[in-house]
Amino acid sequence: MKVDLNCDLGEAFGNYSFGGDEQIIPLITSANIACGFHAGDQHVMHQTVKLAKSNEIGIGAHPGLPDLQGFGRRNMDLSPDEIYDIVIYQLGALSGFCNIHEIKINHVKPHGALYQMGARNKSIAHAIAQAVYDFDQSLIYVGLSNTLLISEAQAIGLTTASEVFADRRYEDDGQLVSRKENDALITDTEEAIEQVIKMVKSQSVMTKNNKEIDIQADTICVHGDGEHALEFVTKIRERLSKEGVSITKLGG
Amino acid sequence: MKVDLNCDLGEAFGNYSFGGDEQIIPLITSANIACGFHAGDQHVMHQTVKLAKSNEIGIGAHPGLPDLQGFGRRNMDLSPDEIYDIVIYQLGALSGFCNIHEIKINHVKPHGALYQMGARNKSIAHAIAQAVYDFDQSLIYVGLSNTLLISEAQAIGLTTASEVFADRRYEDDGQLVSRKENDALITDTEEAIEQVIKMVKSQSVMTKNNKEIDIQADTICVHGDGEHALEFVTKIRERLSKEGVSITKLGG
Amino acid sequence: MKVDLNCDLGEAFGNYSFGGDEQIIPLITSANIACGFHAGDQHVMHQTVKLAKSNEIGIGAHPGLPDLQGFGRRNMDLSPDEIYDIVIYQLGALSGFCNIHEIKINHVKPHGALYQMGARNKSIAHAIAQAVYDFDQSLIYVGLSNTLLISEAQAIGLTTASEVFADRRYEDDGQLVSRKENDALITDTEEAIEQVIKMVKSQSVMTKNNKEIDIQADTICVHGDGEHALEFVTKIRERLSKEGVSITKLGG
Amino acid sequence: MKVDLNCDLGEAFGNYSFGGDEQIIPLITSANIACGFHAGDQHVMHQTVKLAKSNEIGIGAHPGLPDLQGFGRRNMDLSPDEIYDIVIYQLGALSGFCNIHEIKINHVKPHGALYQMGARNKSIAHAIAQAVYDFDQSLIYVGLSNTLLISEAQAIGLTTASEVFADRRYEDDGQLVSRKENDALITDTEEAIEQVIKMVKSQSVMTKNNKEIDIQADTICVHGDGEHALEFVTKIRERLSKEGVSITKLGG
Repeated sequence: MKVDLNCDLGEAFGNYSFGGDEQIIPLITSANIACGFHAGDQHVMHQTVKLAKSNEIGIGAHPGLPDLQGFGRRNMDLSPDEIYDIVIYQLGALSGFCNIHEIKINHVKPHGALYQMGARNKSIAHAIAQAVYDFDQSLIYVGLSNTLLISEAQAIGLTTASEVFADRRYEDDGQLVSRKENDALITDTEEAIEQVIKMVKSQSVMTKNNKEIDIQADTICVHGDGEHALEFVTKIRERLSKEGVSITKLGG
Repeated sequence: MKVDLNCDLGEAFGNYSFGGDEQIIPLITSANIACGFHAGDQHVMHQTVKLAKSNEIGIGAHPGLPDLQGFGRRNMDLSPDEIYDIVIYQLGALSGFCNIHEIKINHVKPHGALYQMGARNKSIAHAIAQAVYDFDQSLIYVGLSNTLLISEAQAIGLTTASEVFADRRYEDDGQLVSRKENDALITDTEEAIEQVIKMVKSQSVMTKNNKEIDIQADTICVHGDGEHALEFVTKIRERLSKEGVSITKLGG
Repeated sequence: MKVDLNCDLGEAFGNYSFGGDEQIIPLITSANIACGFHAGDQHVMHQTVKLAKSNEIGIGAHPGLPDLQGFGRRNMDLSPDEIYDIVIYQLGALSGFCNIHEIKINHVKPHGALYQMGARNKSIAHAIAQAVYDFDQSLIYVGLSNTLLISEAQAIGLTTASEVFADRRYEDDGQLVSRKENDALITDTEEAIEQVIKMVKSQSVMTKNNKEIDIQADTICVHGDGEHALEFVTKIRERLSKEGVSITKLGG
Repeated sequence: MKVDLNCDLGEAFGNYSFGGDEQIIPLITSANIACGFHAGDQHVMHQTVKLAKSNEIGIGAHPGLPDLQGFGRRNMDLSPDEIYDIVIYQLGALSGFCNIHEIKINHVKPHGALYQMGARNKSIAHAIAQAVYDFDQSLIYVGLSNTLLISEAQAIGLTTASEVFADRRYEDDGQLVSRKENDALITDTEEAIEQVIKMVKSQSVMTKNNKEIDIQADTICVHGDGEHALEFVTKIRERLSKEGVSITKLGG
């Protein structure tokens, strides 16, 4: 039994620092690296690729919407063709830095609003997945479990990794409870860890209505900013170990 | 005897059109494609790669400074490390579109202020050439004849192509007469064509002081905007043909 | 009886030209000047303010979404607070150039997706109008006739000018027929001119279902790009004159 | 006897925080607010104007080069006309937020590379000062003491405030020792405070060669990021008080 721990890295920009990449990196197995549209810049990308390589974790592209001010979190009404092209551009740009360090991109995970839009809209999900497939069909495609991100990518022929969240509650249909709801977040650490263990070991989750549903859990999204986040990841790692779950990078 | 004709393409941006790519492309052998920093965007890059491929001309990256408003023509005080990273990013981004169309980048030519700065500053010339070499050492590097762009690239081990201009006058030391001088431009079409033929056939040029000096002439820079430009290129092609010079893409 | 003719100006950017500002300006009475978010830049704004002043037409701010690549035409999911702030910023920026030429902004018209979003969404319409009011309550607010743009602005206390289109068909509820419909556009010049004259003289319009409805027509949106556009505006002017309608800038 | 304490505020951008504006603001008398080119955005500007107003400190515009990635610290080769226009645009934009809070911009201080370029280049210094004068001739112009920033602004007719640095050493000609030199910075807190007191009380400074030269000291540049910076400002305030120097905002 195994699972991957993924985290967004390389989100600094120019003079602006962001997150605690150096602290979280020894605790994770896959890095989603910003590609300069919603965050990151050429210099940050270069440093982050080097950091990920030297820590022997999987390098992933984290393409986002062209909206630095909104950190790629604001929906934008782009056509599928526009989305296809922004994904190709960002995959190419990141591969430039991988090239010079003789390492390959291992996975792709859409960022922010692109991820949310793709989870709900078939033509957007299709455009993202097609771009990834056309760029390199051996890439592992990370998307929200139980959504169009996964089904469209599988339909195209990509290997997928379904992502779950430790601290988010789920609806009966397998979707995340919207952050606008009061009960969207699991704030108790123990409860969150129990949810992770259950998802990984039994590939199921208890919904907010206490119904048990199936969920594919290939990779867990963790965060690296703040002391609390680091502690939380450390605890998840300990429990996964105790339960005999190997923490292994995607495709490994 | 052979020479390449290169032209800057893909310089449109979003709603803004630019140049006459469709008109010039049948007349040239190599395209320098803007990569989204000084001009071009993902959609324009994609279309331009398709257009270049279908016309069977050489595809080149045309990396520039991050200054869309200034069209990459305003010098910026970037460190060699910053320049290295912006070149890698742009080469990667363009290679993304080449990947999906199963074609390779053939050459690289720095754009605008990056080209001018590199021609005169050794550490900048070195940074650009090192980035190109690290990205893909088989790329052909296009730079201004008789400058640091060429010598630094050769020192690193790149294959170079020396660029000459039909309508610019030369100093005795092989540099271009600055555009700030009155006699920088050759305005007479016949005179310009004679200069091209001489450069290509005898690898020499008459300077503004009527001194004959050596010049390497592997590729001629032409322009595609405006009726006059197209006529001029057509005339150059005719004369080259008459003189038995084959018009062949770089490396071909 | 009078009406204003407004046109979007100052939409060039850096090295990119756009539209035929010099040609259209003698034919119009109000200019909507792009403020650097969706189009225009500092230099273009400065030149356009000078051009408008010397032609004695009304100067209007044309604030748009922060999306140069999409020309401000792609919807973005901004909060009312974000919209408020982007409107203030752009009004301020344009007023800078008006200041130095001792002229005042006369009107404001939201651009592109901001205009469309405001026409349909009350909180967005409110945010735009509130920003305009807080900035300068004497500004004339231009919005699509029969929409929330106008009603929200009036509720806040702004003087409004309802905008109509010569070449667009109308629904029975006074909205424009969507461009996605086949019959959205009036392609016959005479028919378009008849529609304008009817709207201005009788403040009513025949809908696509041949129903006559009321419409407020204070200003007509015209375009300046292309020979056809200039001819069309010239014809509208001639017919308005013949019908005894004075072509007068907003508030004049 | 009086002096102003100025600090750069509002340098956050989108999702990126920067500096400790809330902590430093009670300790200073003038804020230089970034205007969206090198740092800051519409939302940050709005919040910073509110914060400055509620703390009753002087509001200043801090226009910079259009280079967010480089934080406006990389020289760019702009023409005087381009510089004039970027200053007007940014002054206008900030005045928008001042308008809605019924407060006026009190001073202007060029930022980063614009400040450095203006200190050394007469045509750039002139362009900045002319823009400020044309926008509002009652604005106080802050520039590096003993440089072209001050002399050009005075020649145009602006009221100037000469800025000095507590922790930088001075050359015999009144210029700052370049940061590239080993002895550019005064690292001993006491020594730095002594320098400030001397500059304010005797309008003179000891150069790095131990020569006493005249220096105009109207405002002291302080920083707000980090605990050390706050302590340092607190100590400067205490010593100024003890010495009977009133800490008063520019023009106050």
